[in-house]
Amino acid sequence: MARYVILVKARDRPGLLASILKVLAELGVNVVIHLGYTTGSTAHLLFIVDSDLEPEEIEEPIRQSIRGDVDVAEIGPEAASLIAEFIGERPLFTSVLEPYLAPSDLLDAIIRLEKEDRIEVYRALSLDTLARIMVIADPDTVEEITSSVDQRKIVKALARLDADEATDVLQKMPESLRRKILYQLPPELRRAVARLMRYPPETAGGVMTTDIPVFGEQQTVYDALNALREHDYDVRDTIFVVDGQGVLKGLVSVDDLLSEVLTTRLGRIAVKPRITVRPDIDREEAARLMLRYGVTRLPVVDEQDRLLGAIIIEDVASILAEEAAEDIALLGATEKPKERYLRATVLELVRSRITWLLIIYLIESVTANVLAAYSSVIEKAGIIAAFIPLIMDTGGNVGSQATATMIRALALGEISEHSGRDVLLVLVKEASTAALIGLIMGGIGFGFSYAISRSVNVALAVASTLFTVVLLADLIGALLPIAARRLGIDPAVISAPLITTVVDVSVVFIYMTLAIVFVLRA
Amino acid sequence: MARYVILVKARDRPGLLASILKVLAELGVNVVIHLGYTTGSTAHLLFIVDSDLEPEEIEEPIRQSIRGDVDVAEIGPEAASLIAEFIGERPLFTSVLEPYLAPSDLLDAIIRLEKEDRIEVYRALSLDTLARIMVIADPDTVEEITSSVDQRKIVKALARLDADEATDVLQKMPESLRRKILYQLPPELRRAVARLMRYPPETAGGVMTTDIPVFGEQQTVYDALNALREHDYDVRDTIFVVDGQGVLKGLVSVDDLLSEVLTTRLGRIAVKPRITVRPDIDREEAARLMLRYGVTRLPVVDEQDRLLGAIIIEDVASILAEEAAEDIALLGATEKPKERYLRATVLELVRSRITWLLIIYLIESVTANVLAAYSSVIEKAGIIAAFIPLIMDTGGNVGSQATATMIRALALGEISEHSGRDVLLVLVKEASTAALIGLIMGGIGFGFSYAISRSVNVALAVASTLFTVVLLADLIGALLPIAARRLGIDPAVISAPLITTVVDVSVVFIYMTLAIVFVLRA
Repeated sequence: MARYVILVKARDRPGLLASILKVLAELGVNVVIHLGYTTGSTAHLLFIVDSDLEPEEIEEPIRQSIRGDVDVAEIGPEAASLIAEFIGERPLFTSVLEPYLAPSDLLDAIIRLEKEDRIEVYRALSLDTLARIMVIADPDTVEEITSSVDQRKIVKALARLDADEATDVLQKMPESLRRKILYQLPPELRRAVARLMRYPPETAGGVMTTDIPVFGEQQTVYDALNALREHDYDVRDTIFVVDGQGVLKGLVSVDDLLSEVLTTRLGRIAVKPRITVRPDIDREEAARLMLRYGVTRLPVVDEQDRLLGAIIIEDVASILAEEAAEDIALLGATEKPKERYLRATVLELVRSRITWLLIIYLIESVTANVLAAYSSVIEKAGIIAAFIPLIMDTGGNVGSQATATMIRALALGEISEHSGRDVLLVLVKEASTAALIGLIMGGIGFGFSYAISRSVNVALAVASTLFTVVLLADLIGALLPIAARRLGIDPAVISAPLITTVVDVSVVFIYMTLAIVFVLRA
Repeated sequence: MARYVILVKARDRPGLLASILKVLAELGVNVVIHLGYTTGSTAHLLFIVDSDLEPEEIEEPIRQSIRGDVDVAEIGPEAASLIAEFIGERPLFTSVLEPYLAPSDLLDAIIRLEKEDRIEVYRALSLDTLARIMVIADPDTVEEITSSVDQRKIVKALARLDADEATDVLQKMPESLRRKILYQLPPELRRAVARLMRYPPETAGGVMTTDIPVFGEQQTVYDALNALREHDYDVRDTIFVVDGQGVLKGLVSVDDLLSEVLTTRLGRIAVKPRITVRPDIDREEAARLMLRYGVTRLPVVDEQDRLLGAIIIEDVASILAEEAAEDIALLGATEKPKERYLRATVLELVRSRITWLLIIYLIESVTANVLAAYSSVIEKAGIIAAFIPLIMDTGGNVGSQATATMIRALALGEISEHSGRDVLLVLVKEASTAALIGLIMGGIGFGFSYAISRSVNVALAVASTLFTVVLLADLIGALLPIAARRLGIDPAVISAPLITTVVDVSVVFIYMTLAIVFVLRA
């Protein structure tokens, strides 16, 4: 059973809606909601339906029964585009649709609207939806919301969230506004948020959940089951047991609770967790620990082992997804994107990409100067220049292959940057791999460049450069991520620029030197 | 409280162990286990300890009290390296250590051993640990285990696993062995595994859990609570309710169960899930749906809506981590790694990297031929060659920036490859971004190349090439991932080779043409 959005644009006529509903009824499609409006002589109709059919199986019969545009898309980004088209003309219709859409689907439609329509929509949203949308939105959207919606409404919306969610939202707001709004929150929420605000979003403390069931060791199984029934905690399969000072004594799973007699004291059945973390460790490190040890609820404790909260496996997936998206952006040599693509202005896109492109100018000022210095060499045998792209690409790729392999091995904990033994193993393995690849690439490169240049000397220069560059690029590419981790830098950040520098600069030096040796002195 | 491994290598003498234990006791370190052996006159001692101290705070006092090597590492990859050093000499000591180490830590130590030692270790492992290690190991390690351990022991180990875990292990075995072992499993497990084997590992069916609490709609809250108490399901916070035909009727959370009277029929309180999936959809798609809609238990159903299993949020994190690791490998232009780095032989490493390097030869055969054809041009003004690296790097990076941005936006569902509106928006946005970047890079490139060449004509050729290349590379880089998704190909797979091809080949054509126009005809 899938949920679809159907958008129909047709010449308005009596019975149009009835004939579409008839087609849908004949198809056995379940209509959840339909709404529409007319501009000029065109009727705009939107249906949300549930069906087991494929989108085309719904689209075709409608198209045959009416004259007009029909689009059917399964709920998701494509449907968001249809919804945006519909509400773009009538932003206030959003509040009718709101109960039928997940916040993510609604937000995806909203960001596709024009700015003034977006503002109208924000103002029309219910408190609950507004709150949920601020939780998942990027900082720029949150800023747009806070600057267009009445501040009292923002406060009321935030009051409906858990402390950790409200903290996430506040951390997306500018400093000054954040303090103003924090001050207006209900006292209990305000205190909890103020505590959480101490932890940066990238740390374990920044991603922990505080809405967890915590009990004293003297409390009983009955107390715990009772509280689980009454409250809607974020964690419902595990309770946390602490002593009078708040020091974590252990965890009890719900099925263990169910098999104990009701009067058993929790302290007696609490099991010490395999691992706990401090609030200041990196959130990705904490997430990877949970995967490595198969832990679903990771307690976060302070220096005195007092329980502060827990990282829950439900959040680990999004933490890792965010970190992966960052790594992919970094490997693509763009800065970490701060907001959604469709919301970013052209200037913001240029800004996120230009730094790295300007760094290239710095790097290439060296290669260009070197090559310029050797231009008399190139003028004597122009064929030498023909192989510069081949050698540069080979070196660059060998380097990034080695780097990608290392980043993966380090991320999965297969090797440790702190183990001298592991680093030695990597060196030996990469040197052997590079030597073999260098021989292959050098060998083929010899044949290749001979075929084009018909000169053994040029081929010798190309082949020997290839071998040297492969060896150099591989070792640098492999050791860079290890060195970066030891210095506490994310390897993905520095690898691309450094590898390009080393490879490009060394390529021209080595190639020009070998070209003089083999070609000009021959 | 962290767990550490301490490895001491020192001259054997009476009282050595006692003096180390005394230091540890004085530090307040809790010794979980210690073991040792002597080779020649050297004592090898391994301690597993729990402590709140930093590793150096433990290492230093020990080093001062004895003469010898002392290494302290927190449990994890670095500790694995110490454990491997210790058990490398005495593989059978592994069975003593086994109860104190997580399977992942143990496996990390084992893969650092020599092959013959690994085999000795596999044979010494308990059934439970052997089973858990096969669940997390790569296919090559599983093959090594099955070819060195008695088949009856393998069968007994598998019999201790859930059906979905046993299926994962069997899918890592060669076809012939898989059937032999499947046949020897206990009948109930065999049937469950045979059912699961129909789903490839990359699909929703391949990652779903079948060990979930399922009840008929006529059963009561009492029945459900009772079963949760008796059985150790993989899912303990939600039950699944089906009708007589096994058709999914809905879900009930444990806290809802707790607040109902015991005689309530489950059919009455079951809530229809927001989404369900078919077993054949891609596992990454299913995982992203769960994140998008905040679903922690996603039912997997067949065409008749009969419940087959559920994807649980605990597994989503590892699914996404695996998919991210694959993407990073692909962006680094290596093939998807089949096994752990430390286990891969040099030949296997070469094989995973060489394909892409050979593709470069194909691409560069075009550029080299073009440049060779223009070598007379280059011989007349060798300075032209000096800017080839600059232009190539700029084009390549603009292209991969655009690609990385698109891959991210598509993965997060910010844009849809099926929405014509979104594709148009991307085109307009990227063309404007590229034009602006092209102007900046062309402008700076003009100054830059003039400074080196002192020739306005060379500078004009470089600047106009840069502008053209930036525009071309950006648009191709942005549209490639969209086209790939529409064709059902993973964008990460094809982007790197295609962008290099397009950029490198077009760079030489455009640059040489413009060089003739501006430099030679001037």
